[in-house]
Amino acid sequence: MITSTTDVAIVGGGPAGLMLAHLLHKAGIDSVAIDVRTREEIENTHRAGILEQDSVKLLTDSGVSDRVLRDGYRHAGIDLAFGGGGHRIDFTALVGASVQLYPQTDVFIDLADARARDGGDVRFGVSDVSVADLTTDRPVMRFTDADGVRHEVAGRILVGADGSRSICRHEFPESLRRQFFREYPFAWFGILCEAPPSSEELIYSHSERGFALISQRTETLQRMYFQCDPAEDVADWSDDRIWEELQARVGANGYVLKEGPITSKTVLPFRSFVQEPMRHGNLVLAGDAAHTVPPTGAKGLNLALADVRVLAEQLERHLRGGAPDALDQYAERALQRVWKAQHFSYWMTTMLHRLPDASDFDVRRQVGELTSVVGSTAGSTYLAEGYTGWPS
Amino acid sequence: MITSTTDVAIVGGGPAGLMLAHLLHKAGIDSVAIDVRTREEIENTHRAGILEQDSVKLLTDSGVSDRVLRDGYRHAGIDLAFGGGGHRIDFTALVGASVQLYPQTDVFIDLADARARDGGDVRFGVSDVSVADLTTDRPVMRFTDADGVRHEVAGRILVGADGSRSICRHEFPESLRRQFFREYPFAWFGILCEAPPSSEELIYSHSERGFALISQRTETLQRMYFQCDPAEDVADWSDDRIWEELQARVGANGYVLKEGPITSKTVLPFRSFVQEPMRHGNLVLAGDAAHTVPPTGAKGLNLALADVRVLAEQLERHLRGGAPDALDQYAERALQRVWKAQHFSYWMTTMLHRLPDASDFDVRRQVGELTSVVGSTAGSTYLAEGYTGWPS
Repeated sequence: MITSTTDVAIVGGGPAGLMLAHLLHKAGIDSVAIDVRTREEIENTHRAGILEQDSVKLLTDSGVSDRVLRDGYRHAGIDLAFGGGGHRIDFTALVGASVQLYPQTDVFIDLADARARDGGDVRFGVSDVSVADLTTDRPVMRFTDADGVRHEVAGRILVGADGSRSICRHEFPESLRRQFFREYPFAWFGILCEAPPSSEELIYSHSERGFALISQRTETLQRMYFQCDPAEDVADWSDDRIWEELQARVGANGYVLKEGPITSKTVLPFRSFVQEPMRHGNLVLAGDAAHTVPPTGAKGLNLALADVRVLAEQLERHLRGGAPDALDQYAERALQRVWKAQHFSYWMTTMLHRLPDASDFDVRRQVGELTSVVGSTAGSTYLAEGYTGWPS
Repeated sequence: MITSTTDVAIVGGGPAGLMLAHLLHKAGIDSVAIDVRTREEIENTHRAGILEQDSVKLLTDSGVSDRVLRDGYRHAGIDLAFGGGGHRIDFTALVGASVQLYPQTDVFIDLADARARDGGDVRFGVSDVSVADLTTDRPVMRFTDADGVRHEVAGRILVGADGSRSICRHEFPESLRRQFFREYPFAWFGILCEAPPSSEELIYSHSERGFALISQRTETLQRMYFQCDPAEDVADWSDDRIWEELQARVGANGYVLKEGPITSKTVLPFRSFVQEPMRHGNLVLAGDAAHTVPPTGAKGLNLALADVRVLAEQLERHLRGGAPDALDQYAERALQRVWKAQHFSYWMTTMLHRLPDASDFDVRRQVGELTSVVGSTAGSTYLAEGYTGWPS
């Protein structure tokens, strides 16, 4: 067993953990981050692709990435499609903001590269992770590294940024924690296809057949989704059947998709989750470890980055001394944003998806809501604020 | 059987029917309106009390009522109460509009007085009402008047303004009509009490115990509601028990109610309903006959008045000739507003009420939504637009 110490021990080497490590480094605070996945595994996990304006700013201002601007695509709005037509929500005109299409996997690569460049201590592919002594001054994480060597790293603070399957969140005593769940009776069928973009910006399409989302990735690779049963088996879906379903859903609103070979088919589950509080002793949670949102509002990654932006500030106050309330302030500020984002994700989800037991009334009411939102500058602005991200 | 003719035969002598008759009269168009209820019965039915700005304008500009301004109370906003405190939505600051507290029963009295003053033909307390020949040029309504005399009135157009128990809407052939329903798993327990006002404006209060609405009527009489089970029996609720429940719900948000003897206790059902289309041959529907909304958004009476404002215009175009599309235009314009109002009522309802099977997640998410709405000028404006009424 090799023992070592650091300022902040971070369980999780995804975007939340690495961004935190990077921000701490810039503040002169040491950290060690570990992840059970290899770097390759994380790079090959396809996830969200829409960054809020402040997420982009965090990546660029902190020196992680200028690639996000160079290789990403600025989206100044989205289309809401329903009732036979499309209606653009012009973020720039409404709230003076835009979002950036830039895949999460590239955010991860930029962060991992930045950590490597700065000599950061990040260990991928570790195993047998456990944490202990969380309410003491010396919380520890233990793990076996990729070479089979056992380690114990003691920090002054331990951060659980270990994603939706977090082990850290289970360290909160049951008597002190509350877990909030919501399951949704549908999922997304997501594809990657080799085709030119069908539109310049995202199309959120409501129809009697259910929701579809037309997204992009590059000039030659596209990402699309359609609402499906959570038990759907991708093996039952030929390329032809997928295109037929997608064309029918967006065709109801006047769109035609450019087709191409489908290179990936996945069913993405829908789930809302929050654990409160986000701090216990010298353990704090960040990102998916503390909260999961359904993908409709593209909030997951942005929420994780918002968490660690605040957390880095408060860890600096805490570790430099003189701020006994810093960790609680983090937990409080983060949770406020989390519940707004939970609502936004729920709102976008329930406004656009067809519930399995939806009545005709429900479908018409959704169209009434969409009509109200696009017909009102205030309604469109309220949506644009949520989509492009509230100030932290 | 006494037979007679008129321009517009109106089944229903509530606010929708009488306002239509009044507007037609001003345009030089004759009508006959009938109602199975006596005038006294209608006057003693307590209903909604919030008029949108355009409803007030319709009453004053058309010469029905200046009492609505003299005896009504101008409300420039509402309080949204949740999470331990109250948050004012300032309609005047946000959208330059206000609403008027003025009971529906007074709107009815003003309209009935105006019809009497203008020599309008309105028959209350009729019985055995039926309608026929609706797709001919001479649709008829038949009834027995309060003196037992049988009548047949033929109009050029027949309007079904006969409320939520409409007989007219059943005249649409089943193959041509669609009915949209939504039931809610709760109701409102409504009281009238002899007490001074507890607040100057309405308080919409969210709490873990469920929704409560604090409204007013006069300086000495108040109207209050709390969410209850639809099967609730008013006999089970003593005054003390009612006050305890109301105080607990608003007390969670820092309010204290002024108590007094309770003079009326009623359980109000919650239901959303729309029938499409609103026109069949020479029969058109208006008001509750075509649509019912839950009371949360105070939209029922306002929607009925908005219907007949448009209907009077289009009937004039139709009857003066040269506008074969007039009745369809009415139906289309009215339905657009109806579905926006259905959504608004659903939104206010689901944002503020506790569903019987609500999880902790749902309650927190509601607080997240309310926080988003009051924290955003756009969100507050969007709510204020819906509450004070969209332009017609």
